[in-house]
Amino acid sequence: MRDATLRDVAELAGVSARTVSNVVNGYAPVTEPTREKVEKAIKELGYRPNVLARNLANGRSGQIAVVVPFLDVPYFSELLQAIIPRARERGYHVLIDQTDGDPAHERELIRRGARAALFDGMIYSPLGLAQEDLAESDPTFPLVLLGERSSNAFFDHVGIDDVEASREATAHLIGLGRRRIAAIGDQPYPTGEAAQLRTLGYRQAHADAGLPVDESLIVQTGRFNRADGAAAMRALLDRDDPPDAVFGYNDTVALGALHEVLERGLRVPEDIALIGYDDIDEGRYANPAISTISPDKDAIATTAVERLLMRIGSKEPLPGIEVRASHRLIARQSTVGRAPRAE
Amino acid sequence: MRDATLRDVAELAGVSARTVSNVVNGYAPVTEPTREKVEKAIKELGYRPNVLARNLANGRSGQIAVVVPFLDVPYFSELLQAIIPRARERGYHVLIDQTDGDPAHERELIRRGARAALFDGMIYSPLGLAQEDLAESDPTFPLVLLGERSSNAFFDHVGIDDVEASREATAHLIGLGRRRIAAIGDQPYPTGEAAQLRTLGYRQAHADAGLPVDESLIVQTGRFNRADGAAAMRALLDRDDPPDAVFGYNDTVALGALHEVLERGLRVPEDIALIGYDDIDEGRYANPAISTISPDKDAIATTAVERLLMRIGSKEPLPGIEVRASHRLIARQSTVGRAPRAE
Repeated sequence: MRDATLRDVAELAGVSARTVSNVVNGYAPVTEPTREKVEKAIKELGYRPNVLARNLANGRSGQIAVVVPFLDVPYFSELLQAIIPRARERGYHVLIDQTDGDPAHERELIRRGARAALFDGMIYSPLGLAQEDLAESDPTFPLVLLGERSSNAFFDHVGIDDVEASREATAHLIGLGRRRIAAIGDQPYPTGEAAQLRTLGYRQAHADAGLPVDESLIVQTGRFNRADGAAAMRALLDRDDPPDAVFGYNDTVALGALHEVLERGLRVPEDIALIGYDDIDEGRYANPAISTISPDKDAIATTAVERLLMRIGSKEPLPGIEVRASHRLIARQSTVGRAPRAE
Repeated sequence: MRDATLRDVAELAGVSARTVSNVVNGYAPVTEPTREKVEKAIKELGYRPNVLARNLANGRSGQIAVVVPFLDVPYFSELLQAIIPRARERGYHVLIDQTDGDPAHERELIRRGARAALFDGMIYSPLGLAQEDLAESDPTFPLVLLGERSSNAFFDHVGIDDVEASREATAHLIGLGRRRIAAIGDQPYPTGEAAQLRTLGYRQAHADAGLPVDESLIVQTGRFNRADGAAAMRALLDRDDPPDAVFGYNDTVALGALHEVLERGLRVPEDIALIGYDDIDEGRYANPAISTISPDKDAIATTAVERLLMRIGSKEPLPGIEVRASHRLIARQSTVGRAPRAE
């Protein structure tokens, strides 16, 4: 007996072949009763669509890749949690990879991704990648960049205004009377471009307030995780002139620093006030809950998926655009204390 | 000019076609100098392997899917962080999906996955899926299950001994003199089968110690996140007879409960001792750091990938086996207090 075809399914279900295709591929919404009829016919006939053959024919894989530096940094998993349903609504599977922030791996992904046709496009949050690497990649490959990097003429870029957000975080601490504010998370050029924008905002807030910057309070970290935050804080607290506040370049670093401060028996925010960046769920439930910069993650996810699908669907390369999502500062116990009770 | 072929690359690089294939597809390790020669030849000739055509020919996609209920539950992102490099070493891309623990979505994935040939096999951590759903799925599809579910005759299952681990967590609290131990995270049959194994261990510890179980201290939660843990704790603390200890069915629930306890001005562990489950990084840096059951995540990841690749490579279906990874109890500040200083 020959294998069942899409037309067999359509005939049995009493719908068009296009409707069967929509059910199978998720290209367009289908009403629930129609879906059930089609699913029933598929089961009855034992129909198996040949996805690889279909994709080979139309040159599409039906997949997009989302590439982040580290899956165990909660900001990235929360962002993925926002991106996956958006892509799924549009009929795309999401393939996730992590690069460990390794520039060689990031370069390889960009090259292989374009070459291998495993996915139709990529949403990419680079960490180690320098502008020159992007310049080398195929400008016809649909690519949307996330994060704080400055834009490239060929690719879209979705992020928040990182300099401004970092200025606000630092100004919040200055406004509370703090004068020795440590910045934890700076990184050297070129891999640390994102971090450097945060340092720039930190400097601007000091300049705005007419305050000098103590360069020794700007601390570099290897990664953006809890252990790095704790290690940086340990070194700062061992100094003769410890800081009275901390701006962590993400919540995870800030939470590592918080742990070290409390381990020493110091009070937060009385002895040391802390603010992070990213507004991860963990920060809301920390003890004390930490103040943070909250980027509009849903807007970032939705915009990134929309722009990518537009690029995938376009017959010719689109010029790169820069999309700024909104952000807001959320003051919690780690800077303003317990009263009034934090949100 | 015709497109460059794999043989052209091999000739220019002075290596075998198999070596080029190993570099391109990651099927087997290649020395760094050889890789460089091949990469150089690929670049010079502008060679682009037709991955889809290759996969169509051998019936493989070169991808495995890893499916988890929620990416924003840190245990799952930490497990993914362990699985991805193992798969990559074996030349497989990982496609990640999350189901939101929705049984309909989980069923659909199992059916579609087998049908669509988008991936060669699946590592799957089901939440809502019942045994009957598994029985419906294609026994020839390579599938490895993660988590605490009892095994199925057709598929492999990798997890820790959940009843025993839960018994140890509860016995640890009993050993510290606690007698009103709340269990947060129970869930109803059939979707909550995993949670029910933890409740079973909780009951066993009480039976071992000759203590009665107060059924009202076993609290169900909708999900396993911080908000659910906090809400459950709020209700427990509003009672006339609050608990003196908490066993959270994962660290995330326990951390939500911890936040609520401290918000009320209660002391941990003096007033309420807490233990979680999963040993996520966040728990180590919580204030206080939380005691937990630590599953051997690397062993789980390695075994799951090995078993899956064995199934993918096997010409006929293999019988399902049950692999038990080890676990250990880690006592930190949330049960044993500050002295001696926690790890």
